[in-house]
Amino acid sequence: MQEDKRTISEIGEFGLIDRIERYLPPGKSDDLILGIGDDTAIIRKDENHVILITCDIQVENQHFRLKNITPQQLGRRAMAVNLSDIASMGGTPTFALVSLGAPPHFPLSQFDALNQGMADMLSEYGAQIIGGNLSGTERDLIIDITLLGEAPANRFLTRSGARPGDLIYVTGTPGLSAAGFTVIDRFPPEFKEYVTAHLQPVPRIRTGKKLAETGIVTAMIDISDGIAGDLNHICIKSHVGAVLDQRQFPKPADCTKIESITGRPFHELALHGGEDYELLFTVKSDADTSVFESIAEERNIKITNIGIIQPSENGFSMLTNTGTQTPVQPKGWDHFNR
Amino acid sequence: MQEDKRTISEIGEFGLIDRIERYLPPGKSDDLILGIGDDTAIIRKDENHVILITCDIQVENQHFRLKNITPQQLGRRAMAVNLSDIASMGGTPTFALVSLGAPPHFPLSQFDALNQGMADMLSEYGAQIIGGNLSGTERDLIIDITLLGEAPANRFLTRSGARPGDLIYVTGTPGLSAAGFTVIDRFPPEFKEYVTAHLQPVPRIRTGKKLAETGIVTAMIDISDGIAGDLNHICIKSHVGAVLDQRQFPKPADCTKIESITGRPFHELALHGGEDYELLFTVKSDADTSVFESIAEERNIKITNIGIIQPSENGFSMLTNTGTQTPVQPKGWDHFNR
Repeated sequence: MQEDKRTISEIGEFGLIDRIERYLPPGKSDDLILGIGDDTAIIRKDENHVILITCDIQVENQHFRLKNITPQQLGRRAMAVNLSDIASMGGTPTFALVSLGAPPHFPLSQFDALNQGMADMLSEYGAQIIGGNLSGTERDLIIDITLLGEAPANRFLTRSGARPGDLIYVTGTPGLSAAGFTVIDRFPPEFKEYVTAHLQPVPRIRTGKKLAETGIVTAMIDISDGIAGDLNHICIKSHVGAVLDQRQFPKPADCTKIESITGRPFHELALHGGEDYELLFTVKSDADTSVFESIAEERNIKITNIGIIQPSENGFSMLTNTGTQTPVQPKGWDHFNR
Repeated sequence: MQEDKRTISEIGEFGLIDRIERYLPPGKSDDLILGIGDDTAIIRKDENHVILITCDIQVENQHFRLKNITPQQLGRRAMAVNLSDIASMGGTPTFALVSLGAPPHFPLSQFDALNQGMADMLSEYGAQIIGGNLSGTERDLIIDITLLGEAPANRFLTRSGARPGDLIYVTGTPGLSAAGFTVIDRFPPEFKEYVTAHLQPVPRIRTGKKLAETGIVTAMIDISDGIAGDLNHICIKSHVGAVLDQRQFPKPADCTKIESITGRPFHELALHGGEDYELLFTVKSDADTSVFESIAEERNIKITNIGIIQPSENGFSMLTNTGTQTPVQPKGWDHFNR
């Protein structure tokens, strides 16, 4: 066999994950309920509970720039990204381990603020840091968090439960974060909401749990790669297709203004921007969905039906504002190809 | 209060860990048995079992150089470092999550070999990779592993159980790894054993479990910072002192030769070299220690008594070859001050 001469950037993040999934030996442990390929892995805890476990690495100048975010905000955000993965399974966060890499000249006050940000964010959800590891780096700050959570053994949600006919919903207004990222260097004060959505996403822990408790949600994921990329993950794992309805996408009040500043239609930011950390979920077609109204009211967020799950042979497409149906190409955010 | 103007390198790794320990809010969860400050954190699993959890970040040019180690060896070594933490608690490894950061030009074949090395090392101990995360980096390879393990709820070992009078033991020959590191660039073929000890340490999983099962071991740690640094961790957590006996330190057969090449007495490499991933443990003074002979024979490793635990007021010292008693300064390996 000839040696594969390609570099990892030619394969891309999703390709590499598929690759790892293929060549890792299958699990033999009775305690493993779900391995690689969802927002978290799932391990049996005791008769009635499972443990959720996820990790996320954030590298300076790849995921953040210290000129745009304070160390405290960065700590909160890095933890929010992991909390969002626990939210998407309908779980409750419990314990975190934090690996930090930092250059020797990194100020102690910023080190403290970073840790404080992480600890504060966790404690808002009743969770805590229980371990970690430190390393020097030559130049860049690196934050890698492993977060554990818990869920009832009979009531967690994965990417693989969607069935044709299920309705597709999102929380909040996906696209805000990408819009905020676009204006972050100019930062017009009237777009504080967008920049805040990017810098300080709110993990939907309580909403995720409520949604799992309804018993009518069939699959769930958090929006880190954009609606297109993340719905595509559900389609792949559930072996289904989907039709999105662009006309139903939630929009911000000053949509036209942000579109003129970013130079892109808002629905494109929602589809391909990512890093919103809202929830995208599917719901049994015959279910009474009025429960979402009370969850939306209680949690003070929008919950919007934006499409419907299809048989896989129908592919993945979108009804546009002009009534035409176009295929959706999941692009997402690829840290190897920027 | 004035802002602290120091950098993290002025505090050092152990200082930073102490700092984090101090300002993190204390745990409230009933499931948390042991938090920051040991080789692993410990969480309750069910009535009869606990979960051990540890993480370790390895950064290129800080912990390894790709010119000295193959990607497969690097994968095995990064996993061994984590397995060693599980070994030091007397636990069995179960599941790992791997965060990888790599530059875009990183060859796919090396990416595969790295992952294969990690998976192979885990599977030798019946454990497996169940999740992970990928990121681009500008230049350096980063490997951060979180490893879980399991132990009976009434039979794990920590750093805090040593009492005055307890005997101090080590497995293997600490110092081999540091000697190997010293000669790695020249690599005289007759020192393959040393270089192998550095590049391919064997985590003492089975030995660690056997030691925990004896019921006479009071505290245990793995040797990552050198005998001095790691015994000092036990002294701090157990509130005790110690006397080491240099004359009892295990030595390699060609000790004189390696001393002339490294230019340092071998016992200094054992004390301050680190990265041996052998076990250091303490044993009840009145226990029947003949069980160690059968463990040593069965596992084919040396188990050597090298000192005795003292009351804390006696401090931490060593009887030298000339019969004098000198204080030991734990230096260890500080990734912020190299």
